[in-house]
Amino acid sequence: YAPPRCAAAQTSAEQGVLPPCHHHEAVHDPQLVPCTCPLFSCPWEGHLEVVVSHLRQTHHINILQGAEIVFLATDMHLPAPTDWIIMHSCLGHHFLLVLRKQEKYEGHPQFFATMMLIGTPTQADNFTYRLELNRNQRRLKWEATPRSVLECVDSVISDGDCLVLNTSLAQLFSDNGSLAIGIAITTSKVHNAEIEM
Amino acid sequence: YAPPRCAAAQTSAEQGVLPPCHHHEAVHDPQLVPCTCPLFSCPWEGHLEVVVSHLRQTHHINILQGAEIVFLATDMHLPAPTDWIIMHSCLGHHFLLVLRKQEKYEGHPQFFATMMLIGTPTQADNFTYRLELNRNQRRLKWEATPRSVLECVDSVISDGDCLVLNTSLAQLFSDNGSLAIGIAITTSKVHNAEIEM
Repeated sequence: YAPPRCAAAQTSAEQGVLPPCHHHEAVHDPQLVPCTCPLFSCPWEGHLEVVVSHLRQTHHINILQGAEIVFLATDMHLPAPTDWIIMHSCLGHHFLLVLRKQEKYEGHPQFFATMMLIGTPTQADNFTYRLELNRNQRRLKWEATPRSVLECVDSVISDGDCLVLNTSLAQLFSDNGSLAIGIAITTSKVHNAEIEM
Repeated sequence: YAPPRCAAAQTSAEQGVLPPCHHHEAVHDPQLVPCTCPLFSCPWEGHLEVVVSHLRQTHHINILQGAEIVFLATDMHLPAPTDWIIMHSCLGHHFLLVLRKQEKYEGHPQFFATMMLIGTPTQADNFTYRLELNRNQRRLKWEATPRSVLECVDSVISDGDCLVLNTSLAQLFSDNGSLAIGIAITTSKVHNAEIEM
């Protein structure tokens, strides 16, 4: 696994500028969060409470509202590594969707998508996120507990514990070079889990 | 893409013997189907009507009944290439689930799962199949139209137009080396598709 290089900035007409960015090497104060915009070399670090405003003001990452939203990632053909990032506000919290194009195996770019809570791991455990692709008579759904931005998005993606798409599947789900990702967040209740068992 | 080598036979206590097998090189009569048990070198070819009895009698592939079933693939640790195969009888037809462990990229085995209708492509278009994995607070669902066994399962898998799992995700969904795959078949009606639009 090689750390991602810097990539050209991504823009989307509707969602605003999505600058790919680089992670910090280390966080010294566990209460401090490095800039969570993954592929951009940003020296900022700060407390959880101000991460949202930093991402919005410095990196111009837009916020989409609502329990169920659709994020349109454009220009899927851009070379790896590239990130598409959006914040999602619902249920009183902000979530960060990271869609990454990366070559784990040389010459074979894949797409990795995950959601992080801009909050603590304990808070993250209260939620379930769902990512859904739906096109060409195919449907792919991934449901999981979001990670906290206090954890590292790089390790989530290198572990492959996320929605993973190879290039051919990404093309089947794309329309004119854009991938529409349905996103839903729900609260995960112990009560529901017991009923399912 | 290299054609899969022969692999040791797979057994499952409940589902019976699952012999991995090899595809034919070519079918001369389009009405004739080569043995659809993919990793085994079987010289048989015959008409669609007798494929089920051939798979059952010669390859001892079991049939599971019901609209929604769970197939337990055991010994997921076996080296690639290995196939797990089961027939699924519902809605008046027989479907073939193929789960394949294969190294597209050397040293990185992946799992590929798809369903084929033991019938014509036109018949296959009337159905939708769903494969579902559900464990460790993660859920992955894949829905698509089944292919016909008159098409080649090898190309479906090499195209990646199926459920694809990397090893780490397969481990997260496995319990004690076994992967439980929920399978459901429904009829796909034009009526429903119009309502969704």
